[in-house]
Amino acid sequence: MRDKPAVRTDLAAEARELWRERAAAADALEGVEVVETDEQGFAVTTLRVLDENGAKELCKPIGSYVTVSFDALLRREEDAFPRAAAVLAGHIREMLTLRRDERVLVAGLGNSGITPDAVGPAAVDSVLITRHLKKRMPREFSSFREVSAVCAGVLGTTGVESADLVAALVQKIRPDRVIAVDALAARSTKRLCRTIQLTDTGIIPGSGVGNSRSALNRETIGVPVLSVGVPTVVDAATLAAEYGADRRRAQDAAENMIVTPRDIDRSVNDMAKLIGYAINLALHEGLRVEDVDLFL
Amino acid sequence: MRDKPAVRTDLAAEARELWRERAAAADALEGVEVVETDEQGFAVTTLRVLDENGAKELCKPIGSYVTVSFDALLRREEDAFPRAAAVLAGHIREMLTLRRDERVLVAGLGNSGITPDAVGPAAVDSVLITRHLKKRMPREFSSFREVSAVCAGVLGTTGVESADLVAALVQKIRPDRVIAVDALAARSTKRLCRTIQLTDTGIIPGSGVGNSRSALNRETIGVPVLSVGVPTVVDAATLAAEYGADRRRAQDAAENMIVTPRDIDRSVNDMAKLIGYAINLALHEGLRVEDVDLFL
Amino acid sequence: MRDKPAVRTDLAAEARELWRERAAAADALEGVEVVETDEQGFAVTTLRVLDENGAKELCKPIGSYVTVSFDALLRREEDAFPRAAAVLAGHIREMLTLRRDERVLVAGLGNSGITPDAVGPAAVDSVLITRHLKKRMPREFSSFREVSAVCAGVLGTTGVESADLVAALVQKIRPDRVIAVDALAARSTKRLCRTIQLTDTGIIPGSGVGNSRSALNRETIGVPVLSVGVPTVVDAATLAAEYGADRRRAQDAAENMIVTPRDIDRSVNDMAKLIGYAINLALHEGLRVEDVDLFL
Amino acid sequence: MRDKPAVRTDLAAEARELWRERAAAADALEGVEVVETDEQGFAVTTLRVLDENGAKELCKPIGSYVTVSFDALLRREEDAFPRAAAVLAGHIREMLTLRRDERVLVAGLGNSGITPDAVGPAAVDSVLITRHLKKRMPREFSSFREVSAVCAGVLGTTGVESADLVAALVQKIRPDRVIAVDALAARSTKRLCRTIQLTDTGIIPGSGVGNSRSALNRETIGVPVLSVGVPTVVDAATLAAEYGADRRRAQDAAENMIVTPRDIDRSVNDMAKLIGYAINLALHEGLRVEDVDLFL
Repeated sequence: MRDKPAVRTDLAAEARELWRERAAAADALEGVEVVETDEQGFAVTTLRVLDENGAKELCKPIGSYVTVSFDALLRREEDAFPRAAAVLAGHIREMLTLRRDERVLVAGLGNSGITPDAVGPAAVDSVLITRHLKKRMPREFSSFREVSAVCAGVLGTTGVESADLVAALVQKIRPDRVIAVDALAARSTKRLCRTIQLTDTGIIPGSGVGNSRSALNRETIGVPVLSVGVPTVVDAATLAAEYGADRRRAQDAAENMIVTPRDIDRSVNDMAKLIGYAINLALHEGLRVEDVDLFL
Repeated sequence: MRDKPAVRTDLAAEARELWRERAAAADALEGVEVVETDEQGFAVTTLRVLDENGAKELCKPIGSYVTVSFDALLRREEDAFPRAAAVLAGHIREMLTLRRDERVLVAGLGNSGITPDAVGPAAVDSVLITRHLKKRMPREFSSFREVSAVCAGVLGTTGVESADLVAALVQKIRPDRVIAVDALAARSTKRLCRTIQLTDTGIIPGSGVGNSRSALNRETIGVPVLSVGVPTVVDAATLAAEYGADRRRAQDAAENMIVTPRDIDRSVNDMAKLIGYAINLALHEGLRVEDVDLFL
Repeated sequence: MRDKPAVRTDLAAEARELWRERAAAADALEGVEVVETDEQGFAVTTLRVLDENGAKELCKPIGSYVTVSFDALLRREEDAFPRAAAVLAGHIREMLTLRRDERVLVAGLGNSGITPDAVGPAAVDSVLITRHLKKRMPREFSSFREVSAVCAGVLGTTGVESADLVAALVQKIRPDRVIAVDALAARSTKRLCRTIQLTDTGIIPGSGVGNSRSALNRETIGVPVLSVGVPTVVDAATLAAEYGADRRRAQDAAENMIVTPRDIDRSVNDMAKLIGYAINLALHEGLRVEDVDLFL
Repeated sequence: MRDKPAVRTDLAAEARELWRERAAAADALEGVEVVETDEQGFAVTTLRVLDENGAKELCKPIGSYVTVSFDALLRREEDAFPRAAAVLAGHIREMLTLRRDERVLVAGLGNSGITPDAVGPAAVDSVLITRHLKKRMPREFSSFREVSAVCAGVLGTTGVESADLVAALVQKIRPDRVIAVDALAARSTKRLCRTIQLTDTGIIPGSGVGNSRSALNRETIGVPVLSVGVPTVVDAATLAAEYGADRRRAQDAAENMIVTPRDIDRSVNDMAKLIGYAINLALHEGLRVEDVDLFL
């Protein structure tokens, strides 16, 4: 906890914002590349941490970070949901670079009994699981990819690091990729339950809610890991720090306190469903957005 | 919303603290009487708003406010739970001033689908309901008071003010008292899920989470109302204001954002159970703390 | 309990089947009229109990009973859900015979904590509530009917008959119709969670799960009541009786035992959503099936 | 399904009853030893399948089966719960034969989303998890055994046999014993949620609800497995067969139908809590029944 910055975020896009606020006007953030686009009405930020300098400045590992903002979803525009699922699916597919027969394990991280931490397990509920079906009826399910899932629980209720459980399962069933879905902490309340970050750098389970665990990434698991993260909380300490509280006072207010949207139960469900659908679209080639419901 | 103070609290004890922080050292808060005691290890603050001046200064109606702090409960000291239930039950009994045969309706206010707002409905789950049993088996249940309950839902999901539903039911079944259990908003994160406020001034459902509804009190319902409130959230705007954010910036951050304990799901359950047990002990004379479980 | 028939059903269509099995081939069931049709792939049975003779023979009050079978829904055919909602909505509209400005109260009956009894409260979760919105923003919501809702709980957890609570609320807010959604008991496991019965004869809350309560109908409530019922359980005693167990042995097995589909949690949710959507389509003229999601 | 007997039970004690009903009066059941006792008011049946003949006759593997009946619990006698937990804990301790430092993994089997199948995951919620605490604070937790837990999910929602997941985790964290908690199918409705069977023969996940999976026992997992099973359902086909329905008719009624107690949600919670508490008492020597709550 010693060196923990008063303002904390799991979003690379926010880390860059923070850097800019601190930097002098003339400074350039070397080792970081950013592209911002609009896709079907959703703002997409693609940030690449290219080298050790960029990693150090942003406190984020070298790799790619794609952030999609879903404000349109919140405004409940017609067909916003299928459009959002399609955009997200496109980026998941691109980052996974899967061959036709490669297999995927989806890991839902976080505590299903704590609402803002439940987005991982809830997303798994919407994922189309095919591993057992393909084994029994290979022909009928030949057009589907082999997908399995696990909800790893949390250290406090299992006594086992979720990275360890996922690693054990990977050794047993040998998927080619792991998709890890988890709740994140953001700096800004504006992003809560409205943004999804994809990254190929893996995940540190629990980092989003204040307790870092052993990492879940290619090194620890043995296969590439795509992380899908949703900011659901702002640390109360972070909010306090943003508003000018000194470090000690902010820490004091923050102890075990989080800021969430008032309608967090519903927002978490919406985001989980969006992620589950997007994963289904990304993994199974023949699947159309409008059919995705049929299997759930 | 015009005149809404930036710092908002449903707790009379906090309203008094706020007054003191603003007042000059020499000022006395006239029309308000405060007594602080320790009961079985729990701090109890009894605050009486005596006249219009006190009501105006604290923005709280004339009446009694008893606040019990349950920090010992949080430390999980042995037998803290039965001690807490006994202390709370004593104050409930004192404020209800019931005769032997008088009947009670317990109203659980708030939205059971939103965790920090669910403490009312959850408390009702732990209340021993006897009205139907006394009707059918009057002799067997002669030593129990007649108790009924209602979960009134919230305006957004019923279209009916919960005060209207409770009033309609009171007209139909004619209880002598109403106990209304609801979630509150506090100013300080330290009090969240650790404090219970009892008041004979009734309740304004939803005021704890930012949307005032028509009041639930003796005037609107026709019988005396004892409110049992638990602070479960701090408005994000209140937190921001505490840390020096100006009004506009605080409002901005606050929109639909709340601060809660990280373990809100569990804390709400604990508080709800405590309130339910205390109500049972207060209403049924022969009941002992250790038997309270037998009926649930 | 004395005269309770060993085989028990809340479905008028099943009561008629039973009558036929007992009757001699030549018998005609006088006072009962039955029409069977197919609507968009769903089998619809419209049964009218015309007089006292029909009522006595079927043990069902005089009135109309429309039963829709949703087997196609179970087979997950494409667009089965919107088709089913449209068919159901048509019958609801027809039986309600509402004028343009008439108001509706939807009552979810049953115990939300007991899965097969939770279909009423769950359906209410999908109903579009407008009463408070029309009050605040009459112009914006002018094209919507005024709809409110209540979940009445069950006698065991409230001490109040749900019919009494609904009656009290009807007196207070004066709707023109009540739609009561409840779980039913069927005779045949084939119908569980696949059939919906609409009737204008009201409902006896709890009759579906073995404990009759005071009736909820035009006489007790003061306004016409449309009941929407879903069979979710078969009494174990009924199943035993069907298979030839004698009365005593069947009663013995049945005590507090029910037969449900293995996937009852999911089936109840599906049926609740279907009913909620159909009610929305029936009540709000401008609403299209494909928009129904936008408001929930 | 070919050879599946029409009457199905996971309880060895019921399998023996069935054998007796079929056997001629003079027959002796060789290879099976049964002792019946009363412990603190609870009936305990200890059945040992001694050889292949006994295994064949009862369709149960060689090993020990201890069945405890908790009717007194249902009558809500005072202190029935702690007595029941103590009796169950004694048998768990006896069958585990653990040395002081040996470690235990508790596996909750079954689907937490289907009430009668949720007893395994729900029991895990009441188990005191210490593995991570002992690692971080070995001295403070020196008097506790190392306990970890996993909820393995079900094949339909994970694509992975739960035995495979548990086996993978066992290889990773190397416990000395596995305790597997699961829902069972019984023959008699009288035993539902009133009986617990302990066996050292392992478990076939899902066998209780009609879909056998790969076994979870010493052979497949590599360490001794103690199974703790609670009958929560009777197959509708079994009930039908008991009442004399012929095989085909019974199968027909049974398809995906189960018989459960009406109050299954509550009963499953009660049984899960009992099992969790008993496991805690059995595993941690210093723990007293009255303290068990403090840690949960």
